[in-house]
Amino acid sequence: MGDGVFETLHLRPSGPWLLQEHLDRLARSAALLDMPPPDPDVSGLSASDGALRIIYTRNLLHVGVSEIPEPVLRQRRDGIRVLSADLGVAAGRRPPWSLSAAKSLSYANNFAARRWAARQHADDVVWLSLEGYVLEGPTASIVWLAGDELGTVPWEEAAILPGITAAHLLSLAPSAGLRPVQRMITLPELAAADAIWFSSSLRGLAEVVSLDGEPRTRSPWTPRLLDLLGY
Amino acid sequence: MGDGVFETLHLRPSGPWLLQEHLDRLARSAALLDMPPPDPDVSGLSASDGALRIIYTRNLLHVGVSEIPEPVLRQRRDGIRVLSADLGVAAGRRPPWSLSAAKSLSYANNFAARRWAARQHADDVVWLSLEGYVLEGPTASIVWLAGDELGTVPWEEAAILPGITAAHLLSLAPSAGLRPVQRMITLPELAAADAIWFSSSLRGLAEVVSLDGEPRTRSPWTPRLLDLLGY
Repeated sequence: MGDGVFETLHLRPSGPWLLQEHLDRLARSAALLDMPPPDPDVSGLSASDGALRIIYTRNLLHVGVSEIPEPVLRQRRDGIRVLSADLGVAAGRRPPWSLSAAKSLSYANNFAARRWAARQHADDVVWLSLEGYVLEGPTASIVWLAGDELGTVPWEEAAILPGITAAHLLSLAPSAGLRPVQRMITLPELAAADAIWFSSSLRGLAEVVSLDGEPRTRSPWTPRLLDLLGY
Repeated sequence: MGDGVFETLHLRPSGPWLLQEHLDRLARSAALLDMPPPDPDVSGLSASDGALRIIYTRNLLHVGVSEIPEPVLRQRRDGIRVLSADLGVAAGRRPPWSLSAAKSLSYANNFAARRWAARQHADDVVWLSLEGYVLEGPTASIVWLAGDELGTVPWEEAAILPGITAAHLLSLAPSAGLRPVQRMITLPELAAADAIWFSSSLRGLAEVVSLDGEPRTRSPWTPRLLDLLGY
């Protein structure tokens, strides 16, 4: 009944990328579901460009390795067409048991959002709060570049999943001469940014090449930042 | 990943109770998830007081029969202690792909709400919309009696799951001299009602015997309505 948690990691020749960060988030997600901390042993796994999935429920701990699906590789290379949609949820008023910061297996809504986008010939959705703030994508964090500001949405304030790839990218921002910023942002502000990306473990960074039907010029920063992240 | 739908039915000596209604809802839930209509064959099953679960995902159609869990029977008999909580969701502003009317397998949030109640020595939760309206419980519809009004929440307006047991009960209301009403109701209005029940297939009607810590007098209508429903 979707009552478990999971993590997806990028499998590299050196092993699972950002392993400790993903294991920490898996344990935090489990705690939000009142589950004991899991202890998967995945450190010995590697691939040239693969996917590692850890699924943890009250009955099982499953580790699976697969290739990265072709559409994901294509989105990493060619970018994504994105639609915005109001989630009808207030960012600042989640219930006391909220699982918004847990990567739970209850993904029916996430998948439904992407099918809705696909029906309109788009690839993904940027979720907006009732107040008009940008939250996250169904399976990604939102990152933007505005001048020298490399920004992402603060997960606690927005009540979203803390993005591991986005946090790592922001930690590297100064080495690229950029200024890491976490702040709430409205859709018009986001649309005015120089570049927008969906960040996640397998896509790395997928550049938003159209937002609500408006084409966007591709940014010279996309290959630079993908390189910085080791993709 | 919680990307499927299900139904739970009350299994009686005469067979699965309200079978067509549950099969219709299963098909509607499936359609909301862009799945073809399922065709489970369960008409031959029966029990004196049992549970029938139909689980339908993109890969499987599973039918399971079990006993009704003892806590469920106890709640049907002794009632439930309920806490109210703001879901942080606007009833009137669900996203275009909303699964709020689908009985999906993504139940992590529903379970988390009940664990939150249990930590405070309560049995269940009544979810409120951002606007202050009563919505539903994690696994039940809300029904109330106020004078001769037997009420429940309109599922389309509230963007909740259409409750089959509640709808059936309301269809029988006139035979008990009661007036069936579907309307939005605030928490103070609900608290002022003569009786409140959580209705679902296995519990039938579980009377709310305390709401947010305030004890409530048991209603003489509880055994009458349970009898009317055939429990």
